[in-house]
Amino acid sequence: MTGLDTLRSPLSFLRSRVRHIPHCNTLDAEEGWWSNEGVAISDAIDRAGTPWLRMFDRFGKRGDEILYPREYQTILRRGYRSGVVWRAQEENSLIPAYLLMYTISFYDPGICCPYTVSLGTAVPLAKYGSAELQDRFLAQLLRKDDTVWQGATWMTEIKGGSDLGAAVETIARPGGDGWLLTGDKYFASNVGAELAVVAARPDGAATGVRGLALFLVPRYRKDGALNYFVRRLKDKIATRSVPTGEVELKDSEGYLLGSADSGIYLILEVLNLSRVSNSIVSVALAQRAMAGALSYAEHRIAFGKRILDQPLLRHQFENRLNALRSAFALAWHSVQLLNEVWMERPPYSERYHMFRLVAHLAKYWTAEFAVDTAKWAMEVHGGLGVLAEYRAERWFREAMILAIWEGTSHRQILDGFEVMERKRAHRMLFQRLMEITPSKALQDMESEVERHFKLPPEQREALAEPVFRKLAALTADTLACESKWDDKKT
Amino acid sequence: MTGLDTLRSPLSFLRSRVRHIPHCNTLDAEEGWWSNEGVAISDAIDRAGTPWLRMFDRFGKRGDEILYPREYQTILRRGYRSGVVWRAQEENSLIPAYLLMYTISFYDPGICCPYTVSLGTAVPLAKYGSAELQDRFLAQLLRKDDTVWQGATWMTEIKGGSDLGAAVETIARPGGDGWLLTGDKYFASNVGAELAVVAARPDGAATGVRGLALFLVPRYRKDGALNYFVRRLKDKIATRSVPTGEVELKDSEGYLLGSADSGIYLILEVLNLSRVSNSIVSVALAQRAMAGALSYAEHRIAFGKRILDQPLLRHQFENRLNALRSAFALAWHSVQLLNEVWMERPPYSERYHMFRLVAHLAKYWTAEFAVDTAKWAMEVHGGLGVLAEYRAERWFREAMILAIWEGTSHRQILDGFEVMERKRAHRMLFQRLMEITPSKALQDMESEVERHFKLPPEQREALAEPVFRKLAALTADTLACESKWDDKKT
Amino acid sequence: MTGLDTLRSPLSFLRSRVRHIPHCNTLDAEEGWWSNEGVAISDAIDRAGTPWLRMFDRFGKRGDEILYPREYQTILRRGYRSGVVWRAQEENSLIPAYLLMYTISFYDPGICCPYTVSLGTAVPLAKYGSAELQDRFLAQLLRKDDTVWQGATWMTEIKGGSDLGAAVETIARPGGDGWLLTGDKYFASNVGAELAVVAARPDGAATGVRGLALFLVPRYRKDGALNYFVRRLKDKIATRSVPTGEVELKDSEGYLLGSADSGIYLILEVLNLSRVSNSIVSVALAQRAMAGALSYAEHRIAFGKRILDQPLLRHQFENRLNALRSAFALAWHSVQLLNEVWMERPPYSERYHMFRLVAHLAKYWTAEFAVDTAKWAMEVHGGLGVLAEYRAERWFREAMILAIWEGTSHRQILDGFEVMERKRAHRMLFQRLMEITPSKALQDMESEVERHFKLPPEQREALAEPVFRKLAALTADTLACESKWDDKKT
Amino acid sequence: MTGLDTLRSPLSFLRSRVRHIPHCNTLDAEEGWWSNEGVAISDAIDRAGTPWLRMFDRFGKRGDEILYPREYQTILRRGYRSGVVWRAQEENSLIPAYLLMYTISFYDPGICCPYTVSLGTAVPLAKYGSAELQDRFLAQLLRKDDTVWQGATWMTEIKGGSDLGAAVETIARPGGDGWLLTGDKYFASNVGAELAVVAARPDGAATGVRGLALFLVPRYRKDGALNYFVRRLKDKIATRSVPTGEVELKDSEGYLLGSADSGIYLILEVLNLSRVSNSIVSVALAQRAMAGALSYAEHRIAFGKRILDQPLLRHQFENRLNALRSAFALAWHSVQLLNEVWMERPPYSERYHMFRLVAHLAKYWTAEFAVDTAKWAMEVHGGLGVLAEYRAERWFREAMILAIWEGTSHRQILDGFEVMERKRAHRMLFQRLMEITPSKALQDMESEVERHFKLPPEQREALAEPVFRKLAALTADTLACESKWDDKKT
Repeated sequence: MTGLDTLRSPLSFLRSRVRHIPHCNTLDAEEGWWSNEGVAISDAIDRAGTPWLRMFDRFGKRGDEILYPREYQTILRRGYRSGVVWRAQEENSLIPAYLLMYTISFYDPGICCPYTVSLGTAVPLAKYGSAELQDRFLAQLLRKDDTVWQGATWMTEIKGGSDLGAAVETIARPGGDGWLLTGDKYFASNVGAELAVVAARPDGAATGVRGLALFLVPRYRKDGALNYFVRRLKDKIATRSVPTGEVELKDSEGYLLGSADSGIYLILEVLNLSRVSNSIVSVALAQRAMAGALSYAEHRIAFGKRILDQPLLRHQFENRLNALRSAFALAWHSVQLLNEVWMERPPYSERYHMFRLVAHLAKYWTAEFAVDTAKWAMEVHGGLGVLAEYRAERWFREAMILAIWEGTSHRQILDGFEVMERKRAHRMLFQRLMEITPSKALQDMESEVERHFKLPPEQREALAEPVFRKLAALTADTLACESKWDDKKT
Repeated sequence: MTGLDTLRSPLSFLRSRVRHIPHCNTLDAEEGWWSNEGVAISDAIDRAGTPWLRMFDRFGKRGDEILYPREYQTILRRGYRSGVVWRAQEENSLIPAYLLMYTISFYDPGICCPYTVSLGTAVPLAKYGSAELQDRFLAQLLRKDDTVWQGATWMTEIKGGSDLGAAVETIARPGGDGWLLTGDKYFASNVGAELAVVAARPDGAATGVRGLALFLVPRYRKDGALNYFVRRLKDKIATRSVPTGEVELKDSEGYLLGSADSGIYLILEVLNLSRVSNSIVSVALAQRAMAGALSYAEHRIAFGKRILDQPLLRHQFENRLNALRSAFALAWHSVQLLNEVWMERPPYSERYHMFRLVAHLAKYWTAEFAVDTAKWAMEVHGGLGVLAEYRAERWFREAMILAIWEGTSHRQILDGFEVMERKRAHRMLFQRLMEITPSKALQDMESEVERHFKLPPEQREALAEPVFRKLAALTADTLACESKWDDKKT
Repeated sequence: MTGLDTLRSPLSFLRSRVRHIPHCNTLDAEEGWWSNEGVAISDAIDRAGTPWLRMFDRFGKRGDEILYPREYQTILRRGYRSGVVWRAQEENSLIPAYLLMYTISFYDPGICCPYTVSLGTAVPLAKYGSAELQDRFLAQLLRKDDTVWQGATWMTEIKGGSDLGAAVETIARPGGDGWLLTGDKYFASNVGAELAVVAARPDGAATGVRGLALFLVPRYRKDGALNYFVRRLKDKIATRSVPTGEVELKDSEGYLLGSADSGIYLILEVLNLSRVSNSIVSVALAQRAMAGALSYAEHRIAFGKRILDQPLLRHQFENRLNALRSAFALAWHSVQLLNEVWMERPPYSERYHMFRLVAHLAKYWTAEFAVDTAKWAMEVHGGLGVLAEYRAERWFREAMILAIWEGTSHRQILDGFEVMERKRAHRMLFQRLMEITPSKALQDMESEVERHFKLPPEQREALAEPVFRKLAALTADTLACESKWDDKKT
Repeated sequence: MTGLDTLRSPLSFLRSRVRHIPHCNTLDAEEGWWSNEGVAISDAIDRAGTPWLRMFDRFGKRGDEILYPREYQTILRRGYRSGVVWRAQEENSLIPAYLLMYTISFYDPGICCPYTVSLGTAVPLAKYGSAELQDRFLAQLLRKDDTVWQGATWMTEIKGGSDLGAAVETIARPGGDGWLLTGDKYFASNVGAELAVVAARPDGAATGVRGLALFLVPRYRKDGALNYFVRRLKDKIATRSVPTGEVELKDSEGYLLGSADSGIYLILEVLNLSRVSNSIVSVALAQRAMAGALSYAEHRIAFGKRILDQPLLRHQFENRLNALRSAFALAWHSVQLLNEVWMERPPYSERYHMFRLVAHLAKYWTAEFAVDTAKWAMEVHGGLGVLAEYRAERWFREAMILAIWEGTSHRQILDGFEVMERKRAHRMLFQRLMEITPSKALQDMESEVERHFKLPPEQREALAEPVFRKLAALTADTLACESKWDDKKT
């Protein structure tokens, strides 16, 4: 199998990049099912567009039922059964979940959004939830059958998602046997979930991020009534199967996770999981777009030969394959680091901060790469690329969502620099990279970063982008060297 | 008015870049109408999606009627009245047409597709059509009222658009009082046009591009029957108002333009017009996306201030404004050169070949810039960028079509290198650039191009992209220096 | 012109049925514009489906903007300019408004919904509003240009529209300089209107219909903020251009019309206007469906002749033309009676009660006729009748809405019997019918009605339908005799 | 179980009407699956609308692939497995097929269209196909697993479906190892079927219906290429899952069924199967609409009690249940008669002609009843009836298609009278009805029919409708007496 051949299947590519892959049988089964069945379902769901919200039933009872194309459940439940959530708890490792997500999102990038937010609900509950809360809710999230509960992570309000300290206006007041939350969540993914983690400010708490706390909010109240309301679903350009909506909390029953004053740490830990997912999905999507371009380029003839055999395009395929490997190495490193630190609690270790830096680099770099690759794959298809009839344009739409969700590039750059500045996280990273391949380029990069910190603050921010981009590229390429052994094999 | 303020209106930007703008009143009126009325119509048409094809009327008569949202006609006819076609003939200049297109496509990038192909029908008819053909058809294309005929330029068939020599299988046989054409056109923009120019191979002509000829094909036969058939309309991700379809020619009446053996030259001359349009539209779209981002960044508050005032974003705005100016300078230079050479016939002058090179550079560079800018503008909008409800995502879809139509980047790079290699078109370009600002960078670039030609053919093609990109960027930046006078002013 | 020919235009038919038609020029102009321009717009709007609701602007500000296909405004504003509302006030007559509605709804049955509810807002304001309220709001509703305000009449809540006494849960509390209303309206037509009349129960008022009052609720509060909220728009099978939605009142500023304890009378007066509109629109729609069937039957050939010339179909056309004339006579009689009594206030005259009976008969009979005729017209079209591509199926969908809005047949039957039982309204009706053509059939009918009242209550209701149907048919046929003069002429 | 309770399930109703029901387990399983799973799938497919046609694959190869919502296959294949086609052959009886269709179409009326046309392909092949043709094709149509082939019956062309003699312009010429067909089919249900029966005129055959012959046309040619082409799919108001399109035959390989000069008999035999299906589906749909109305009326409260308990509505439910029983009796009688005569070949028995009359009466009466019932059920739902969100409006759309397909009422009336006039088919029918319950009403009806035949031809046709309607109603009511035993039981 040549390198290009590994593009055709997610597992082939994973095998060429990751030395030890647990649960190969499960992954094989996923891949087989998806390539035979799932792909056509996923296509049909994308065509069908945003699910419907049936707010009231025929008898006038508010139910906020989400009407999916039915087969969405087929796809969705499958991943839960295979272990995108329960394996993390049971095996005490995130590796199987992210391997599953890579495999699945090669076929449907949107579906990993519910998986990620369900994981992002189960993990803090298991880590910070009281015994009583765990008794009441954890088992449902970890079920291995189709009765599994879904989770959701609702932070963003109408004023935006980046400055949570200012934007979260949802208030929690003591009440019931816990808290009662009131406020509107403006970008709520996976609405309809049986359980959500929700950022809110306990009444009277400090302003800014320090005053935020994290609450569990179930779909139904203790008395069986709806506990939150779905105002509407949003029509997005991609991840069309996932119901993203606006949620109204009206004295909704909530349960505090951890202590009220450490909420922001819990929120960031939830974001860590999503950001790493976003990176994994981005690389899988890039691979998928390349796989589509490859099969097209093998069949399309121009000027008497396959377009794959024309030097310019061939060269682009090879270069991009290398870039894919680098992007994967960076994303996978973020997975591995997260897997080391995910059970830490504040105050965090140095390694945790290094993880945060790598996660920012990976989120940034892989999403950029996914968009660029999807664009390129569309161009390989020529005019067919712009037609809804074929799927090249879909990858382009899906990729762009990845570049925005979980924080745009701006956010990654600024937060990445913050963790370097405050926690010196780059030191540990450079040390790690040097162990792989000591090089002049790495030394120069480190100096450039340090010089950058000496700029006046305004300029430091203004000029941050090219430095961060260079750092991400170099980190990715260096990490990719570790798996070089395998390039020869393939 | 600061530089950023020029982003808000197409005319403000044009005024800051072009010394002498003819017909300012007309352009002002266009801009006024569009910002008050047209924008909402354009939005509604994009939401409504692809027009419908009503193939048969209720009584079973084939009519191939295209059912538009009615207001599409309001938009469409307006541009024709303002002169996107008739001015070229009447004023013997393409400048007014392209200024109009820039102004209009700031508000609706798709609408310039019908204008361009109508121009691409009128121009060869006026230049190469017999007196009889001109008598019969030209006046209708140049009407200044709503009875104006539309044109269309149909080359591409199912085997693709880049290798026309192999892909055009439409055959023309002598018949009627001209020719009868039979074949299928697979990517036919502006179907429903009253008159099209169509590439076909006269029966018995040579294979390859040399055997192609260009024919006029009216919508209706002399006896009033349909002369071509619309098999279906295509569902595209953008330019949703424009009916792009598949056309069946079945002994369709056609009229030869020019001589049968010079057809390929005529075809390429038609492409010249479209490629330059594509560049102009790309820059206008990039400006529009930036204008949207600007108005958003002025209103959105995060971390206590407008996001426009945050150093990283501010810096990006300023950099991108410079890049917009460079891209415009390159596109506009292609307009000016085309305006000098558009009446040439083969054998062409050196200046014509330089135009071709500049047109390739401009098509490539401006489309890349448009996609990149639309992506960036989406990110500035954060989560709102992915919602169909707001228009940031539309510019992204529209931009991607511009990157594909009239030849993808691959095509521009390879054809650009061909005209450099065969016609030494870069010599004249470098000479021109040196006159603007002689620089080491230009000298180095010229050497790099010459070195590149010494590579073995396979490698020459494989490694063409970075050289071409660098050449395009340098050409754009150098040309932008000419209008530097104006940056100060604004 | 034969009788069938009058089907082709609304005015031709009106001229054959109504002796004196005021403002013929206006109606002529409406008909001309609609047949040339409006029809295509109306078709396109139907295809485009439900308008969009943009709840928040890009900057997070709630605006509840309704996004129409832009040309909806072209259609809509035209009718207001022509006088569907202002003429009623200025000319002190409803005749011109209903003639306009007949003419317009021949082309677009849905558009008369906004007209009717605007009329239903202006009339009670002019009749019952305080001088201050009239000063503040009336002139805007009566404007003759495109700045005219629209009205709306919101009664129905989630528990249904027939039993308002039990279903209206919206509460009005004194506050501001009037009242503050809180509650949800579930079927709110023409949401987005600048001014609505709203049924609500003043806090502490009696239960049942007696405790209801009617309030004016403007779109914006005195301080410029939104005064009511649009929760969502509903996807209906017809009247696709009209935004019907759910409205949330949250301490919304309201102004009492009339006295608090006579609210139910005002509500019923508003319903009178709508019910009569519904009848007029139903007849116009039936005529339109027949016109479509006629033009089809004239062109379609089967078994060697036009299907119009085949005896069975010919016979059906002639029968149905007579039925159309009867239905029109009934509807028009309801218009004429309303025009006599619309300024009455409780306690009402006997004539008012006769009007109510005729309005129930007309609403019931004309809607049944519209559905039946639309079904028949679809069948005339054969297989083409079921295709979205042609418009036969649209009339079917539109007709069915008319059979439901403003009270289904059940409601008309029961309320019709109530006004007969309580107010002996049938006596006056029979007297009137006898004056036209004294007949045994009328005598028998009167006896049958009287016998019916002697049944035990349960049975009286159970068996009401066939009696009511017979009464409606006989009334319609008898009234049609009055315009018999004209059948000969045509 | 009361009578109304039988409305809730198709099998309950069947059990109350049919003495012996074979394969109860299979029907039970169907009903169980549909009420648990199928209903939600069917709803989602209706929302998704017309399937897509992917005419060309990415590589430019024409494939005419029909893109369904994937779960359509789940639904579709299930019915084939259960035996809607294979049981007819294997058990030598149509009873099981029509019982299955009743059960299934209670949940999804459209899905029985493919079943019917597949049956309409298998039956003539088994009856008239040469041994060679049966060897080649029959087994595939009778498979009991998901590899089953689908059939299709394509008669109608652009000039219409009622006058096949004039409208069929498809020509068959000897060629290949059979015939080559060329022409366009305008209303082609179940396009994409692996095998179709197609009406065409052998070159040189007589004009009119006598010159028509019936051909088998497979989807793929012997050499594997496409044998027919799908020009487009049609957007219908109902049966949204079924791909109805236009088919182009271009020298398509065809195989003659029976002799060339008896084609019209074969065509009519195929229509017999469809007409009986249409009747069965109509009754099932009426039951379904009533079931929906019932569950609504049980829950909705107005004026202090369930609307089901209000006398007028209660009375309507009871009346309509009786009407449903009559309609079923008529439809089921057409099934039983067909089951007796379906293996007959021309010249046919008297019983065959009686079947034809009953089939016309049943098709006419049940479709009218289905539309009327669906309309009534919508009205029971009040305003909710017009919303796409709930399903009441769907039954209305579906019913109207049943009133048009397989011949509108006009067609049934005229053809029904023809078989009475030419074959005296009513004599045998009256004899049969008299055996059930001799009555004055039957005697009067027979006299009325005989008197009708004495009218002059033009008048005979013009006045045919009321006689036919009365005959249908009386026949249905009389046949319903036979199952009266059961009304008591329930």
